Amino acid sequence: MTPTDTTLTDKHIIAVLGGTGAEGSGLAYRWARAGHDVIVGSRDLAKAMACADELNALPGAGSIRGMSNDDAARAATLAVLTVPYTAQRATVAPLAEALQGKILVDVTVPLKPPKVDRVALPEGGSAVAALQAELGPGVRVVAGFQNVSAHHLKNPDHPIDCDVLICGDDREACDVVVELARTAGFHAIHAGPVANAAAAEALTSLLIFINKRYKVPSSGLRITGLPA
Amino acid sequence: MTPTDTTLTDKHIIAVLGGTGAEGSGLAYRWARAGHDVIVGSRDLAKAMACADELNALPGAGSIRGMSNDDAARAATLAVLTVPYTAQRATVAPLAEALQGKILVDVTVPLKPPKVDRVALPEGGSAVAALQAELGPGVRVVAGFQNVSAHHLKNPDHPIDCDVLICGDDREACDVVVELARTAGFHAIHAGPVANAAAAEALTSLLIFINKRYKVPSSGLRITGLPA
Repeated sequence: MTPTDTTLTDKHIIAVLGGTGAEGSGLAYRWARAGHDVIVGSRDLAKAMACADELNALPGAGSIRGMSNDDAARAATLAVLTVPYTAQRATVAPLAEALQGKILVDVTVPLKPPKVDRVALPEGGSAVAALQAELGPGVRVVAGFQNVSAHHLKNPDHPIDCDVLICGDDREACDVVVELARTAGFHAIHAGPVANAAAAEALTSLLIFINKRYKVPSSGLRITGLPA
Repeated sequence: MTPTDTTLTDKHIIAVLGGTGAEGSGLAYRWARAGHDVIVGSRDLAKAMACADELNALPGAGSIRGMSNDDAARAATLAVLTVPYTAQRATVAPLAEALQGKILVDVTVPLKPPKVDRVALPEGGSAVAALQAELGPGVRVVAGFQNVSAHHLKNPDHPIDCDVLICGDDREACDVVVELARTAGFHAIHAGPVANAAAAEALTSLLIFINKRYKVPSSGLRITGLPA
C-alpha cells in the first residue's frame, strides 16, 4: 500500500527526486537538518548514495538515504522534483503510479539555455501545468521553491533571503507545503492556483538577469505588506 | 517637430495616458510632486481636466494639466500607459505617430475578470509584447510599475513598499525609466528584456491572490540580495 492522505501533522518521508544537483541536494539538506526523514533520489543509484554520503557529512544531517528515483518515490510520503526542465517529464512519467495520492512539489524552472536570463514561457504557460496534465489528478501537484537560489542552501548558518511562492489547485496540499517549507526555515506564501506558478517560474529568469546586471550572487524576492 | 532622444538628464514632460484611473492618477501625482511636468490624458478631455484639478488640490501638486490622449501624447517627451488590458491596444493605435521616438512606459496588466487573482497569460506571453508589435520599433517601449498597488499612491507620506521591475529591449530607455521611478520615490530595478515583462505582469495576479488570502490591502514585492 502506498501512503496517502498526507496531512499537516504527519512526519514526512521526503524524497527529493533528481536530488543530486545543487538545488535538490541543498533542499534535502535543509529538510534533513530540520528533522525530516529525507531520501535523495537519482536515475543513478550510485550517484544518489554518494550524494547522501556527502550531505550526511554536513552539520546536522546524518540519516539521509540515497535511492533510485523509483524506490525513492515509493518510499516517500511526499516527493520534491528538482531536475532540469528538459528532464522533467521523462523523470516523472515512470513514477506516476508510485506517486498516486501523494503530494509532488515541482521546483522545475523552464529555462531555455543559453539565454537563461530571458523568460521563455513553455506551451501552456508553465512547466508545472504540463506535469499535472502528465500525472493526472491522482497526484497532488504543488509548485514552489523556483526562486530559491542554491547558492547558500548548504551553509546552515546562512538564512535564505527569499520567500517561497506556493501555487497549487489543492488547497490542503499547499498548506502542507507551506508548513514543510517553514520547518526548514523558509518563509512560504500561498500564491494561488497552479496557473499562478507561471509567474513564479518565469520570475527566476528575472532574478538571473538581476544577478548579472547588478553583479550579485543570489538575488531573491520578498512579498511585502503582509502581517508580521 | 516631436521631441525625441529622451536622455537620462532631460527634464521630462510626462503624459499619463488613460491617466484618470487610480493607478494612472496616483503615478501622475507622485511624478508631479517630484517636480516633473505632468499631463493626465484621457479619451474624454473633460474627465482629464477634472482629474488634473483633483490632483492639483493634493499637497505638492498644482501644475498638472488635463488633455486628450492625443494632445497629451504629442506634448509629452515620455508617455506612460495606464489603461485596463481590454483598452490597451485601442488606446494606443491612434497615438503611434505622436509617440515615434519617445519612450512609452506600459503599465498594463493582462487581468481577466472576474478571476483577476488567477494568471491568464495573453498570446505571446505578455501584454507589452503585443503593444511593441503594434507600435513598431520606432516607439521605445518599456514595461514597468505593474506590481505597484494604487492603494497608497495619493498619500504622499506613505512610502511605497514595492520594487518596480523595469523590462525593455532598449537598455538606455530602461535606464531613463529606472531613474524616472527613482525621482518619485520608487526603487526600480532593470529586470531584463521585454520578454521578461511576462513575469512582472503575471505576478500582479499573485499579489491580488495574496491580498485576499492574507487579508491585506496591498501586498508588493522586494528584490533581495542587492547591494544596499
